[in-house]
Parts: sequence; C-alpha cells; structure tokens
Amino acid sequence: MIIDCHGHYTTSPAAHNQWRDQQKANFKTGGDIDPAYPDISDDQIRETIEQNQLRLLRERGADMTIFSPRASAMEPHVGDLAVSETWARICNDLCARVAQLFPDRFLPGAMLPQSPGALPATTIPELTRAVEELGVVTVNLNPDPSGGSFSAPPLTDRSWYPFFEKMVELDVPAMIHVSGSCNCAMHATGAYYLAADTIAFMQFIEGDLFRDFPTLRFIIPHGGGAVPYHWGRYRGLADMLKRPPLAEHVMKNVYFDTCVYHQPGIDLMFEVIDVDNILFGSEMVGAVRGIDPQTGHYFDDTKRYIDALDIPAEDKRKVFELNARRVYPRLDAQLKARGL
Amino acid sequence: MIIDCHGHYTTSPAAHNQWRDQQKANFKTGGDIDPAYPDISDDQIRETIEQNQLRLLRERGADMTIFSPRASAMEPHVGDLAVSETWARICNDLCARVAQLFPDRFLPGAMLPQSPGALPATTIPELTRAVEELGVVTVNLNPDPSGGSFSAPPLTDRSWYPFFEKMVELDVPAMIHVSGSCNCAMHATGAYYLAADTIAFMQFIEGDLFRDFPTLRFIIPHGGGAVPYHWGRYRGLADMLKRPPLAEHVMKNVYFDTCVYHQPGIDLMFEVIDVDNILFGSEMVGAVRGIDPQTGHYFDDTKRYIDALDIPAEDKRKVFELNARRVYPRLDAQLKARGL
Repeated sequence: MIIDCHGHYTTSPAAHNQWRDQQKANFKTGGDIDPAYPDISDDQIRETIEQNQLRLLRERGADMTIFSPRASAMEPHVGDLAVSETWARICNDLCARVAQLFPDRFLPGAMLPQSPGALPATTIPELTRAVEELGVVTVNLNPDPSGGSFSAPPLTDRSWYPFFEKMVELDVPAMIHVSGSCNCAMHATGAYYLAADTIAFMQFIEGDLFRDFPTLRFIIPHGGGAVPYHWGRYRGLADMLKRPPLAEHVMKNVYFDTCVYHQPGIDLMFEVIDVDNILFGSEMVGAVRGIDPQTGHYFDDTKRYIDALDIPAEDKRKVFELNARRVYPRLDAQLKARGL
Repeated sequence: MIIDCHGHYTTSPAAHNQWRDQQKANFKTGGDIDPAYPDISDDQIRETIEQNQLRLLRERGADMTIFSPRASAMEPHVGDLAVSETWARICNDLCARVAQLFPDRFLPGAMLPQSPGALPATTIPELTRAVEELGVVTVNLNPDPSGGSFSAPPLTDRSWYPFFEKMVELDVPAMIHVSGSCNCAMHATGAYYLAADTIAFMQFIEGDLFRDFPTLRFIIPHGGGAVPYHWGRYRGLADMLKRPPLAEHVMKNVYFDTCVYHQPGIDLMFEVIDVDNILFGSEMVGAVRGIDPQTGHYFDDTKRYIDALDIPAEDKRKVFELNARRVYPRLDAQLKARGL
C-alpha cells in the first residue's frame, strides 16, 4: 500500500471559496462571519476530486492520501480568532466529506483555528472535534500565524504545552505547515514554506520538547526544508550548542516527507536521513504542477524518485506505508478496521 | 590558488568588541555613539588572526580569504542609522587593517551601514569609501535589517536601485548575508541565515532585477540556503510563474558558496548547480567550529569535500580560483597587480 502523507484540498469547490470571500468581506464591514454555507452536493465534490487528485493517484500508482484543507488558504492572519474558528470548522468538515465520499482513497487531516497572538490552547476544541467526530488522523500546525513575520514563540515554548498534551492524549501527529504569505518579500511556496520548515527544526534542536513529550510526533514537510542539505551543519550545531546528538534529541519524534521535486534532492535525503524518519508525500495538486522538461514527468510525482532509488524493497515499504502506520496510529487503526 | 570567498573576522580583538558595547550603552543613555576608539596594535590584530584563520588556512591548504566584519555582529537592528554608520566604518577599517597586515592571505570585504527602514541609498557613501579607500572587493548586503521579521522590501524593489547602480559602477558583487537574530524563535546560524538565503533566491525568480542590471552579481552563501536541495521546486516554480528558465533569468548573476558542512550536501550542489556558479567558501571560524565525529575532520573544512569530488581538475580550479576572479574583478586586479 502506498500512502501519500501530504495532500491538500487545493481544488475545493468554487462555492466554498466564495463563502470564504464573503466571510472576509463581512468581517471587514462588521457583518456575520458565519454566513449560511452554500449547498455543495456530493457530486460537486466528487467532480473536483475525480479529475484531479484521484486521477493522479491512479495514474501514479499510489493508493491513499492524507487530505487536509488547502494550506495556503488557512490564512490565520486574516480576521480574528472567531473568523479562524469558523473557517477551520468549515474546511475540516469539507475534507471529512471528501474522505467519506472516497473512503478507500482519502483519510482526513485537519487545520487548526489559529490566530496571531491567540494561545495554542484555543485550538484544542477543534482538534478534539476533528479527531473524535470527523475521524482525522493528523492536524496541520502553523508555527507562524502572522503570515510571514515569524513573530510567534517557538514551538518549544510552554504556551504550546496544553495543545501538545492533547495531541499526545489523542495520539495524533502534526504536520508543521505555514499558510499563505502576506509578506511581499516572501513568496509562499518558494520561500516561506521552506524557511518555516527549517526554522522549526532548529527550534527542536535548541529546546527540550521531546524530553517533556517523548511520544509527540511532528512531520516537517517539503523534505524538511533546508535540513537534509545542511545535515552536517545541524549535527555540528547540536554539538556546538551542547545538545545531544540529533538521532536521540530530535529524530525520535520528527519525520520528513518526500516533497522534494527532483531526483538528486531525494537521493540526498535518503543518504543522510534514516529511512525510518521518511514518509512518502507529494503535495499534489500543489505548489509545483508542471512537467519537468528534463524528465518528461510531473515535478511533484515524487513516487518516481523513490521508485528509482537503489535501496531495499523493505525500506521503500517503510517510506510508502509502514512509517505512516506508525506515525499516524489513527490511520493504521482505520486501515486495520477495514482489513487493510 | 585557492580563494575562500567567505570569511568573517569572528575573532576580532576584545577591545574592538568592548567599543561596540560602549557604543550601544551610550546610545541607550543618549551619550556619544562615536566614543574614542581604543588603540589596538598591529601585534594584537596579528595574534587574533595567526592563531585562528591563518593557522587554519595553512592547515587546510587554502591561500586567501575574502575577509569581512563578523556577520552576526553587524546588527543593523541595534541603535539607529548613525549608530550603524559609525559601527560599519570601524569594522570595515579593522578588516582592512587585517588585509594590510597579511596582504598575501586576506582581501577585505565590507559591511554596510544598514538600519531598519533606512533607504539603501544611505549606504552608498560607505560602500564607495570602502571600495575606493580601503580596497574592499565585495560587500555584505543584509536583506533583513530588522533582525528576524523579514519586514524589508524584496531585493528587487526599486528602493535598492541607486545602491545597485553604484555596485555596478564600482564593479563589486555583494554577498547576501543577514546578521544576528533578535527573534527568539529563529536561531541565527541554524535557521535565520538559511531562511534568508532561500528567500533572496525566490525574490530573484519573482523579479526582473537582472534585466535591469545585467552585470549585477550576488553571492548567496551557505550553499544557497535550501535552493540546490529544492532545485526541482525552483525550476518548476519558475515555469509555473511564467518566469524564464533559471539559467538565463537568475544564474547569470547569482553564485552559491560551498558553506555546506558535509559531503552529501556538496555532492548534491555540484550535481545540480553549474560549476561556473559555485565559489569555494568555508566561513571558518564561524557557525560550526567542531570536528565531525563521522569524518574526524572539521565540519567547516569544506575544501576536503571539494577535493573528494570526482570532477575534472579544471572544474575544481574554477571553484577554487577562476570563478572568484571573474565574480570579484577587484580581487582579480589586486592579484594581477602582484603578479598572481
């Protein structure tokens, strides 16, 4: 079984996106931030999926995707906490519907109702609802709700602890994922995403979060940002800062996905990162949707790069399936309940 | 000849650092921000260099270093523009003294007197002085004078144009290099540096700076941040954003150094980046000063990684010397004037 750990509903129905535009407009004018949600039929949802993510899953030979709301549209910097709470609920419900319509293909992930300056604990009710009522197997946690100024405390800050306690209690991991950039100097998918990934990893080196939460698990997407490329720098910094070796201090709790859109990058990742810490992911249909003229294949068809690796079949199975079952126990439980 | 394009005076004399502390203290209390500079003897300077950078140059078998003020101490976010102007002048003078004391070993680079919100054009006088009076061959340009909030306009913004015109006129390249982080969520050398490098590259993709300045040249240090590892993402983003191919749009004007502290990272860089765009650099004595237990050698002894590459000797000569002579014409001129 091949499980893509990183998919967003980037092709959500126009009516859903229009609702968001209405919400934003209402917020500005002091209107209703929870206006009536449009009647979006199952067929309308099916259509947005079948022509896009489902078609590509079939064409590329993958089986399932962990499917969460569009990252760039989470926009925690827009409006206030109440706006985010409403928007998160609506987006999470929509992704859960996709998973209900295609139970063999999509498992739901959730976004969190974050807002700049709001305590992480404010997101616990939606986390709990998403896990217990919608069946989500993971959440996306935004380390910079400001949308590009990196003004939030580090992920190792005590203000996160109540949220992490709930994550541990529910046994769900989080993908660390910023949203759209409202900083004109920082392109979202070309700069902000990778910067945030890299910054988060260094926060884990500096802190002692996993001493306090030994079973807390994070996925750092986009191949871990700059981290594998600079693996020597991080090993050396851990040493200089008198931190324990990365293998015990960070890498029992942190996983990288394979959203690296060329073979040499994937080769490097597998050379320096333990295979137990790598999860197959593509983020299709996402940041880079074109075909690589050098290969004739989609840049984000990351399964091809893994297929091409000269590593044992058992290692590929870890990356495609077994690691995901271990990192996302609720995914494993749902699959087992279906006899998979 | 082996030229290290990336060295900072990280071992500057204690009296110099104490002067800075005094300047900061005076600024806070409304005192003199240009107090009397201490009498630092040539021998005191020699001592800080001979035991550190010069010893390592000899041990590692490199010949020369482009030597600029300590990056983490540039601190443009401290004080105001006048504080930065004074500090830059003093630091640039000190690096020029090092180069005068060791003319066969060090060529001076300069920092710029930047300050949050100040127009880039305000740094032109110090750029001009450093080039014409101190003989510097390059400057370090900080894309985020805020010290970690990325609040400045992109490098492609028109506000930079007067400064770039002067760079072109003087025929000096700039290394893009942030300073210390005053953001507790962003470690300087483990997060901020790499984030800034990556962000700058994406700004160049989005903009058309090199159409307007075809001979402007930038070095993006630390191996180009996350860029080579995500080279497929950048090729694909250029395509998606309807930008020209990177080879013509960015890579005629942008160079990466080799400050990547492990062999697999250097291998990747040389696999995806044209050898004409790679400059030997180590940033010793800098961010990572320890010995890699996996190799028994210093993490930042990047010459070893290049020596180990299975590439033609002529390519190594480009990386060690010829590219630097091309990118830094004032370096080339100084070497030629000495018959080198």
